[in-house]
Amino acid sequence: MRVQVPDSFVKSRKAVCLLSGGLDSSTCLALARREFHCYALSFDYGQRHRVELEAAARVAHALGAKEHRMVKIDLRAFGASALTADELAVPKHRSAEEMAEGIPITYVPARNTIFLAYALSWAEVLESSDIFIGVNAIDYSGYPDCRPEFIAAFEHTANLATKAAVEGRTRIKIHTPLIALRKAGIVKLAAELGLDFTLTHSCYDPSPDGRPCGQCDSCLLRKKGFAEAGVRDPLPYCS
Amino acid sequence: MRVQVPDSFVKSRKAVCLLSGGLDSSTCLALARREFHCYALSFDYGQRHRVELEAAARVAHALGAKEHRMVKIDLRAFGASALTADELAVPKHRSAEEMAEGIPITYVPARNTIFLAYALSWAEVLESSDIFIGVNAIDYSGYPDCRPEFIAAFEHTANLATKAAVEGRTRIKIHTPLIALRKAGIVKLAAELGLDFTLTHSCYDPSPDGRPCGQCDSCLLRKKGFAEAGVRDPLPYCS
Repeated sequence: MRVQVPDSFVKSRKAVCLLSGGLDSSTCLALARREFHCYALSFDYGQRHRVELEAAARVAHALGAKEHRMVKIDLRAFGASALTADELAVPKHRSAEEMAEGIPITYVPARNTIFLAYALSWAEVLESSDIFIGVNAIDYSGYPDCRPEFIAAFEHTANLATKAAVEGRTRIKIHTPLIALRKAGIVKLAAELGLDFTLTHSCYDPSPDGRPCGQCDSCLLRKKGFAEAGVRDPLPYCS
Repeated sequence: MRVQVPDSFVKSRKAVCLLSGGLDSSTCLALARREFHCYALSFDYGQRHRVELEAAARVAHALGAKEHRMVKIDLRAFGASALTADELAVPKHRSAEEMAEGIPITYVPARNTIFLAYALSWAEVLESSDIFIGVNAIDYSGYPDCRPEFIAAFEHTANLATKAAVEGRTRIKIHTPLIALRKAGIVKLAAELGLDFTLTHSCYDPSPDGRPCGQCDSCLLRKKGFAEAGVRDPLPYCS
């Protein structure tokens, strides 16, 4: 006889899940929800592609997040990145070699440090000790704050930063389940988890009607990942 | 013969200085400006005492900061602290022993982690490798993110987080010149540096006309510091 255990009993722990609405963070949330009550956290940091924020809201709802908070932050105040500064163009049609060379202009200064700091703040309020972030150090476009050594250092800092950690009531864990996966591996995992790919959004430079350009680094990495995984990407690319 | 060296020649380096407008961060800025071009950074995080933000602007101007940025952040979204939540009362008339017991309700979750993350972001844009924060681990009211081990961990994280650090062009240094000083020592240092104490603001719960209450933890610590230093505090306390 198989006993039906109510969902609320199995998942007694809470996790804060950083969610951009892209493929990686959505897959990360789909994984986290198997073990945790998830509190999805997104940032409105003056992205040119507000389509991303709508995708985050759709994904959080579809994956049953307990709450979804959208925090407005002011990275634009500090300056230059193609993702936040209107005057810079998003690079297109770059090869894997070009993407791997140095750090792209789509880099946002100290972004993951800021995102994780906010996640830590919410985790403390929720009395949660688990934070999920969908970083990926393989097909990672050269962002320094996606690497395992950065995550480990932040986790150490977090355990010195909070009341609960100082009082020995908890130990903060930064979960990075995708960190060692290639994009194709993430696509396969997401497919296994039953993620609805039409909800996600990856493009750095979508068309006015919200369709992905198909030519920026993020679109190219995504397309390559789906192709290598042998999974059909249902998104309506412009090209 | 004494050669007059222009200020702009001596101070070629930039530093980001976290500035609340309180005694500690103002003293910290007064120290930093002797060696650096200072970029003062303050946060509007839904403080009940907006007087603090006005003090920060006055101090930044008076101490010749190159720029003063006020970043609006959304800590109120996450929850409870007497400094941000309207329904909680600021504790008054507490003894040093009571203040030392545990972490006060005026604690804001992960505040210094968030502040330093923003400072790091701005430092990267400015191509600065120096950040000043006026934390103090002695008379520190029990905040975990004011301790030297927290600062050291954040500095390590910062050096793994940024493009410039990864490319070996810089090494981020978090300066905490007040960390080992008692409040009386900070008052003496500030007096030596010629800080105009009337510009600063320390109270957690000022009167409607902006006068310090004289009874909250912060006022009590400040008064005690001035008394022990033998320096007159010019602020018009309510009591």
